[in-house]
Amino acid sequence: MGEGVIVLEKRLNDFSTYLKAQNIDVAFINSPENFFYLTGFHTDPHERLLGLLVFNDADPIAVVPGMETGQLKDAGWQYDIIGYADHEDPWALMKERGVDTASIVGIEKEVLSYGRSESFFSLFTDAEVVDVEGQLNEMRVVKDEQEVAIMREAAELADFGVKTGVEALREGITEMEVLATIEYELKKKGVSEMSFSTMVLFGEKSGQPHGNPGDRTLKAGDFVLFDLGVVWKGYTSDITRTFAYKSVSDEQRKIYETVKSALEASLAISEPGTRIGDLDQKARDIITDAGYGELFPHRIGHGLGINVHEFPSMSHLNDGVLREGMTYTLEPGIYDPAIGGVRLEDDVLVTADGYETLTKTPKELQIIK
Amino acid sequence: MGEGVIVLEKRLNDFSTYLKAQNIDVAFINSPENFFYLTGFHTDPHERLLGLLVFNDADPIAVVPGMETGQLKDAGWQYDIIGYADHEDPWALMKERGVDTASIVGIEKEVLSYGRSESFFSLFTDAEVVDVEGQLNEMRVVKDEQEVAIMREAAELADFGVKTGVEALREGITEMEVLATIEYELKKKGVSEMSFSTMVLFGEKSGQPHGNPGDRTLKAGDFVLFDLGVVWKGYTSDITRTFAYKSVSDEQRKIYETVKSALEASLAISEPGTRIGDLDQKARDIITDAGYGELFPHRIGHGLGINVHEFPSMSHLNDGVLREGMTYTLEPGIYDPAIGGVRLEDDVLVTADGYETLTKTPKELQIIK
Repeated sequence: MGEGVIVLEKRLNDFSTYLKAQNIDVAFINSPENFFYLTGFHTDPHERLLGLLVFNDADPIAVVPGMETGQLKDAGWQYDIIGYADHEDPWALMKERGVDTASIVGIEKEVLSYGRSESFFSLFTDAEVVDVEGQLNEMRVVKDEQEVAIMREAAELADFGVKTGVEALREGITEMEVLATIEYELKKKGVSEMSFSTMVLFGEKSGQPHGNPGDRTLKAGDFVLFDLGVVWKGYTSDITRTFAYKSVSDEQRKIYETVKSALEASLAISEPGTRIGDLDQKARDIITDAGYGELFPHRIGHGLGINVHEFPSMSHLNDGVLREGMTYTLEPGIYDPAIGGVRLEDDVLVTADGYETLTKTPKELQIIK
Repeated sequence: MGEGVIVLEKRLNDFSTYLKAQNIDVAFINSPENFFYLTGFHTDPHERLLGLLVFNDADPIAVVPGMETGQLKDAGWQYDIIGYADHEDPWALMKERGVDTASIVGIEKEVLSYGRSESFFSLFTDAEVVDVEGQLNEMRVVKDEQEVAIMREAAELADFGVKTGVEALREGITEMEVLATIEYELKKKGVSEMSFSTMVLFGEKSGQPHGNPGDRTLKAGDFVLFDLGVVWKGYTSDITRTFAYKSVSDEQRKIYETVKSALEASLAISEPGTRIGDLDQKARDIITDAGYGELFPHRIGHGLGINVHEFPSMSHLNDGVLREGMTYTLEPGIYDPAIGGVRLEDDVLVTADGYETLTKTPKELQIIK
């Protein structure tokens, strides 16, 4: 049995043990991300049904479009599979399989559609419904060695994307041209999907936290903000760097150094035991003390893994505590609509006694000539 | 009042009239696509709530993240807006607004999550729940002039994508390199999103209906299959063309000509009044008669508009009838795992007395030298 399969066995066992402890008879997993986490098989079923039935006292059953059963087995799945053809009703096939006695059933409440929940609940008349998404979020928060190894590669590709973008800069080039060059070079390295819409913003446009790249051309004195990441072997990366083009004003430099100090301060306390909310608060205090508090309108970061935004939310309200193996982004920013904005973002791994940034692009202010 | 606003007014009125006829007191629209269709505002709220309350006897109310209220108004929205901050509960704000008396409520059953349905239903104790997605699908099926004008531009960009791909072909180049070149050139034209993962497949890989582009290199005698489309001003395109590289065998030519005949035959009967299922059956008969019936495993096409796959499904079982203004794809294919596959796909608009293909790339077999 391969190492990957042992990992998946443990995840399934842990989840099944949780179900037993909660008296949940069966859970129906419907999100491609949690399906991947528990089976090792990554697929986007579009409108077709993808599901995993996990029981507290029996082996799990995967429900997949018939044409994908082979790939599921290739990914290492050793249990039962209900593969259905387009003209078949997967719910009826589940019922035939005798999946119909349960008094408490678990679903991912924010994922399962109301329509599908009707079909699922019709299998279990009068069963109580509870949410199991929180437990899976909780399990996914701590990454194992294999996951970290993949995320390291994903972060390296993000670093490469920033480097490519910097090398493409020249007076008069548009944001979209630089963006196209970055994604072109990443695709040539085998990246088939970005983890979100790549952001390349120049000058005053970098001052919009959610700006859209367009035909703004680059000129001396502009900030250049890159925010990008890749999906790699089922895991994501997410980096932001900001550069100055040709020259930098004193005010721009102050903004940059403030953001850099804020990021460094929250990195410095990234270690097991730290209250998660303190990472945001620490950075926010530095930005507020420098007089820019109003210009930092978002939380400092988010969990990172199979989803580019996953549990936990790194807001100042989060009373959770960092643990070894957690991965998340830290991304303080200051956005001045006139001068432009600076955001710096690292992907962070909590280690036994501190942290490591998976993204390695230097954070010192660089003036691109 | 601009022309765009008049169109939106009519859509809202038509939908509200439908609600009244069905005795539905209020509908909650949650999908970004239907929100865009009824408001003119295109946004991806990620995990935040986006919603539109449409009543049968009162003006609609939009529910959006607070930072997006300005953009919604800029898009022409003239009615009430509930803009909520991240720390506010949008459901509570709806309740405060007095949105809480209804005996029949409508939702998009396949879109609204179970969790959100719980929040929504808590506003309307004991109300009956019905689906309104079907009605919106039905309304969206016939496109108006403005929609067709945009889809024409989207199709033109898809044609350009194919042309770019053909020009990039050279012995030894990989599928991913060609794909990267296509998307690079489209991005430079302002396309920020493809309508699905671009497909570039060489040789035997074109024989997989759902193949993934990779590092397969191009060699003489290969089929080259492109399947791609763009999102443009909220609407999509979707084209497939297949070419031969350097040379073509008799069997390849027979496969190609069979697919071309199948597409032409289903185009020929594209006109108001035609049974939709006949489009598939006509093409399928030609492919079956040529001895390739087993190698055409999918329906002939799908509706096209705001979604790249939308209503109706163009399968042989569809007893619906074509109407002027409908837009859909026709995409017959033959997939031989050894020889490779051919698929040809046009975006089709039903006109008063026939059809027009929005995609214009020629369909004659081309041998790229």
